[in-house]
Amino acid sequence: MTTINATTYSIHFDEKAYHELASLVSKNNYSSIFVLVDDNTLEHCYPRFMQLFATDKPIEVIQIEAGEIHKNIETCMGVWNVMTELGADRKSLLITLGGGVITDLGGFVASTFKRGIDFVNIPTTLLSMVDASVGGKTGVDLGVLKNQIGVFANPEMIIIDAEYLHTVSTREIRSGTAEIIKYGMTHDIELFNEIRGNDQVNIVDLIHRSIEIKNEVVLEDPKEQGVRKVLNWGHTIGHGVESYFLESPEKEAITHGEAIAIGMVCEAYLSSKILDFPKKKVLEIKEAIINIYGKVAINEDDIQPIIALMKHDKKNINGEINFVLLNDYEDFKINCKASEDLIQESIAFYNS
Amino acid sequence: MTTINATTYSIHFDEKAYHELASLVSKNNYSSIFVLVDDNTLEHCYPRFMQLFATDKPIEVIQIEAGEIHKNIETCMGVWNVMTELGADRKSLLITLGGGVITDLGGFVASTFKRGIDFVNIPTTLLSMVDASVGGKTGVDLGVLKNQIGVFANPEMIIIDAEYLHTVSTREIRSGTAEIIKYGMTHDIELFNEIRGNDQVNIVDLIHRSIEIKNEVVLEDPKEQGVRKVLNWGHTIGHGVESYFLESPEKEAITHGEAIAIGMVCEAYLSSKILDFPKKKVLEIKEAIINIYGKVAINEDDIQPIIALMKHDKKNINGEINFVLLNDYEDFKINCKASEDLIQESIAFYNS
Repeated sequence: MTTINATTYSIHFDEKAYHELASLVSKNNYSSIFVLVDDNTLEHCYPRFMQLFATDKPIEVIQIEAGEIHKNIETCMGVWNVMTELGADRKSLLITLGGGVITDLGGFVASTFKRGIDFVNIPTTLLSMVDASVGGKTGVDLGVLKNQIGVFANPEMIIIDAEYLHTVSTREIRSGTAEIIKYGMTHDIELFNEIRGNDQVNIVDLIHRSIEIKNEVVLEDPKEQGVRKVLNWGHTIGHGVESYFLESPEKEAITHGEAIAIGMVCEAYLSSKILDFPKKKVLEIKEAIINIYGKVAINEDDIQPIIALMKHDKKNINGEINFVLLNDYEDFKINCKASEDLIQESIAFYNS
Repeated sequence: MTTINATTYSIHFDEKAYHELASLVSKNNYSSIFVLVDDNTLEHCYPRFMQLFATDKPIEVIQIEAGEIHKNIETCMGVWNVMTELGADRKSLLITLGGGVITDLGGFVASTFKRGIDFVNIPTTLLSMVDASVGGKTGVDLGVLKNQIGVFANPEMIIIDAEYLHTVSTREIRSGTAEIIKYGMTHDIELFNEIRGNDQVNIVDLIHRSIEIKNEVVLEDPKEQGVRKVLNWGHTIGHGVESYFLESPEKEAITHGEAIAIGMVCEAYLSSKILDFPKKKVLEIKEAIINIYGKVAINEDDIQPIIALMKHDKKNINGEINFVLLNDYEDFKINCKASEDLIQESIAFYNS
């Protein structure tokens, strides 16, 4: 696949990407290399990485526990301390090898260690390939608040190697697919059409096109002051749903993608009420999403707490909930507002 | 005093600076204002600040404990959590009011909260006025390692109000004076001459000139890849001495400035041995420094552990100790190396 160029770095694909990494390492003459992994990627991805990446620099592996619950400052402290003990200096390189937790946390650790060392992202899940690793956002959670602490910082390079997808579950793949559907609805409806068609899809093509779209959006608005907000399509309600299912002891947690898929159905409904998004397409989206993800039961009682959680979103200013909505496929509008009644109605619509 | 312009922000002086702050706040329409203080500045500086700064925005005070020992990630966690509870959003402003601990830590907290909110520095000690608050470095300590975690981030504005100096001790003033002497030796010998002369000095002039020098250096090399290293004059050995006196249970801690003053004597000695810095000036520096700061006893046994601490400095690459030395006053050379024997000799020279 063709390399995609971002501002100061590139996104390389397939096995040739490891040669690019070797060139980067030799060009910058790093003093040492640290690879951040979790239990899963150490076992399933690190062997492939080491087989394909050739270097004579010393490599140290730093392992953290897998899971969003460990994406916090305490884990950062652990990694900063290990790097210090192992003699990391300003010319060290940190390579992140894992899903969104590893790439987000690793990018933050690197950007703040001795006021910033270089890092390279190698996302190993579909979600992190199409979304988390690209775009310069790094961060960790503060309590229940996602990515509350972080910085904007670009990696030196991103490697997309779809072989790593064989190491993750079908449910995780489906989760990442929701972000591809998102890019489809806002920028290139063919992505959505391919996924909801029943044919075998070429996942590498879908990843490449998704990254291309995200990269263009981020280049235009790196700090999310305007058009980048489009990437939150489905996420305003989606995040509320995700947090609610995560926090409620009697509910089973759902994946990020499953929540965002629900969010897209609800926000399509809002789009039809607030803008001119065709009602027919709202129904088409709901059907396709339930086809792919099944139906998650959201009761009447769940709706208020979900809306309460949405009010905590860090994208809100002055406590107002901010939406991106659709006039039509590939035609979005940022900074939309919706009344609480309408939000409630939209969740009830998903549930109907 | 004249305003000094940095890249994206300005350094304002005296009472008129508070009007500039009010303009900034109204121009950017911040949603809320947080003022970070410690026990001392809450009592002694905050009343003056509130008297001079007029705004109709809500102001919340966040207080942390005074002292370098609290300049760590745990304190940041506390501040991030309080800001979250008080509803800080991306359009909030953080004002730091205090010495280097407050401005360094506050800048880091602001730059990482929700991936970065605006902040304004109001340094209240001489050291933070002439050094810590200017130049875009933010950070906290990791264990004994100073500023190990941090980012480069610029405030929206710096206010220098020398009235706050009445709230700090003579010893603290002397500590800050060492940084002014530093700028004198490397860039403008008149600063050093004024201080070592016995006349009454105009402290505001000295502060203004010091900031002018630092600002020029930082504009030329914001990320310390070259010429900015000159700001470490006296600091390579000085930091080692400072850490050693801080860590040794049987020693009384000395101030940053006292340690840097010793460092300048030792590094002047190295300059005469490695470059052509005149021996006469080495003696002149030693005499002036001991005149101002008195003589700190460093025993034979202390020298090795001091050198060991110097090796941990985050400015070192591949374990080599890096010096800036002088060919002459106002004529420096970065990236100098010295043998351990010579470093040892230079400390013995101070002690002789």
